[in-house]
Amino acid sequence: MGVTALVAHSGGPTSVINASLAGVIEQARRERDISRLIGARFGVDGILRQNFVDLFALPEEQLAALNHAPSSAIGSSRRALTPADDERILEVCRANDVRFLFYTGGNGSMETARRIARLSSAAGQPLSVIGVPKTIDNDVAGTDHTPGYPSAAQFFACAARDIGADNGALLDQVQLVEVLGRNAGWLAAATALARHDENDPPHLVYVPERPLPLTRFLDDVQRVFDRLGRAVVAVCEGQLDEHGEPFGADVRMTSRGPLATNLAHRLATLVTERLGLKARAEKPGLLGRSTALVQHALDRDEAHRCGAAAVRAAIDGASAVMVALARAPGRDYTCSTTLVPLKTVAGVERHLPAEWISEEGRDVRPEFLEYARPLVGEIDHYPFWGGR
Amino acid sequence: MGVTALVAHSGGPTSVINASLAGVIEQARRERDISRLIGARFGVDGILRQNFVDLFALPEEQLAALNHAPSSAIGSSRRALTPADDERILEVCRANDVRFLFYTGGNGSMETARRIARLSSAAGQPLSVIGVPKTIDNDVAGTDHTPGYPSAAQFFACAARDIGADNGALLDQVQLVEVLGRNAGWLAAATALARHDENDPPHLVYVPERPLPLTRFLDDVQRVFDRLGRAVVAVCEGQLDEHGEPFGADVRMTSRGPLATNLAHRLATLVTERLGLKARAEKPGLLGRSTALVQHALDRDEAHRCGAAAVRAAIDGASAVMVALARAPGRDYTCSTTLVPLKTVAGVERHLPAEWISEEGRDVRPEFLEYARPLVGEIDHYPFWGGR
Repeated sequence: MGVTALVAHSGGPTSVINASLAGVIEQARRERDISRLIGARFGVDGILRQNFVDLFALPEEQLAALNHAPSSAIGSSRRALTPADDERILEVCRANDVRFLFYTGGNGSMETARRIARLSSAAGQPLSVIGVPKTIDNDVAGTDHTPGYPSAAQFFACAARDIGADNGALLDQVQLVEVLGRNAGWLAAATALARHDENDPPHLVYVPERPLPLTRFLDDVQRVFDRLGRAVVAVCEGQLDEHGEPFGADVRMTSRGPLATNLAHRLATLVTERLGLKARAEKPGLLGRSTALVQHALDRDEAHRCGAAAVRAAIDGASAVMVALARAPGRDYTCSTTLVPLKTVAGVERHLPAEWISEEGRDVRPEFLEYARPLVGEIDHYPFWGGR
Repeated sequence: MGVTALVAHSGGPTSVINASLAGVIEQARRERDISRLIGARFGVDGILRQNFVDLFALPEEQLAALNHAPSSAIGSSRRALTPADDERILEVCRANDVRFLFYTGGNGSMETARRIARLSSAAGQPLSVIGVPKTIDNDVAGTDHTPGYPSAAQFFACAARDIGADNGALLDQVQLVEVLGRNAGWLAAATALARHDENDPPHLVYVPERPLPLTRFLDDVQRVFDRLGRAVVAVCEGQLDEHGEPFGADVRMTSRGPLATNLAHRLATLVTERLGLKARAEKPGLLGRSTALVQHALDRDEAHRCGAAAVRAAIDGASAVMVALARAPGRDYTCSTTLVPLKTVAGVERHLPAEWISEEGRDVRPEFLEYARPLVGEIDHYPFWGGR
């Protein structure tokens, strides 16, 4: 007779969070020590309300489909937990005889996982809490990268290439592409992988790690436009100016602080007003994390392995750890799963290193491309007559 | 010794306009009567400046790649032509001994083609002008649909499904998806193909053929949110309210009149202000017409066939006609190419028929789905635990 294990999702979905879930399910089924695996519907909300689904009852063909399905099949939550919620989670785990908790999320979710682990330990309640990394933002410490990042990075690199191809066919405007990532520039930086030649789009890449004075932005755009008769700009949704303000964009409050809702649109408006150039902005937005159109095989495989590794870690007696990806040294890319203490990753936002951003702050350095290329893969290109 | 043929692109690119170009090139190579095929760089601009590329010189492997490459490989133009431009085009064709002109575009471009055909005829200049249909908007008369529409429709249907899956995993907001199409609702309507069950997203679909009073929009959103705890809304970029205004969105002047630049964002803002609901908007924008991620095989094949048919039409002595797609009656979908006079399609905007829009104006009728499904294909879905 084995124990009950519980898996929950937290925060925004990715295109491979279900692959991690499939990894948990498949590994748990193999383990004699686990007799029941339940999934919380809509994250901690599902735990608090004891709204669970029996994951061992999932038919085989649905399990196979799950591995490829974007978004979160069991649902997720952004709820900010109170101390009373923490206590209630422990109580629900006790009541349902849950001994393993697999908590899937980003750095904020790892903070929750750490708190639960600490509380259960203090209360003498036997509960292994294992974090499964997940975020397109790639801003989690202790891991080479996070599952979800490679697919989203590939999506935005393709978006920059394709919107750039459109821009290059008409030569009549400045084109802004808004990229997800909040305060972290990992995704915006990845659009640089779309380039094969010096003049390929994106011509300017801005990351929120570096404040961007409006005058410098406008100068950059004008210079590219003067040279090429066009300009494609990749900018992160969380980009701020030198005053820490989003250029006058609309802002809304989120569970993780204020966030501009129309940054690229605002910048396009400024380009037209200040430079007199035709400009437009696109915001693929959540499509960048939820699309089934780009689900990178490497990412899916790694996400699945992270899920399986979490189950193995619990079986092996670990707790208060997060599964991480460790890249092997050497030219050929390989990553293996490892474990890092939750306390080293909880609540830590990992930013794009300053030395990977170009001096002028409008591009990334080759070191970033070397890091990202094996993860994101080669981005096809379509070179024909080019230029004007 | 054959004649010189010229091909030019006009207006916004699509993901299969290059497939039509490949069709022109491949068919022209087969024709003994054509000894030279040149492409205008950047549409009429290239004609006016005699900026041409030799399309017979395109290496085989590039020709194969062209068939799959999104955007326009030779470049396009939105230039509004003056009478002097028209004369200059005829003059350039005379000077370069161009006898066949393949003009690829939408209804506005067919108006240009008709003018050129009429002028050359009046001047006794031997020039066959053949229109090749191209637009994601599907608003060209005389054809079952336009090449470019099926791919873009598939993209936006997948976008509605995937952003809808994200929305369903978090259950915390109203999600607006802005769809291309300007004044025509064909693309917005196609998002309804994403649904497999009654409660699947998109929950509301608005098309610009039907004015949308703000109060009705807000009522619709509130009603869906009350029922499902979420709402996914597909709205065309050109949607107007009952006063013919875009709900207070920002507007810019384009070659085809004013167009809102942030319609979905504006509606999301109104949802939050008036209903107190969390709302966000995504605008995949030009990605919807330029993406290499969705290039529908049927669309590519039809686009290619339209290009080849244009060459055959010129060889057969036709002029002042557009290639069109005619759907065969019966259950199984097949389309063949045919020819329609330019005068019947030039400048005519074909809208979504009123009888294909639901009475309440917030959805499409089954007749539209029957029309569109064979073009767009089945949209996969990912049903797991669903609902709350």
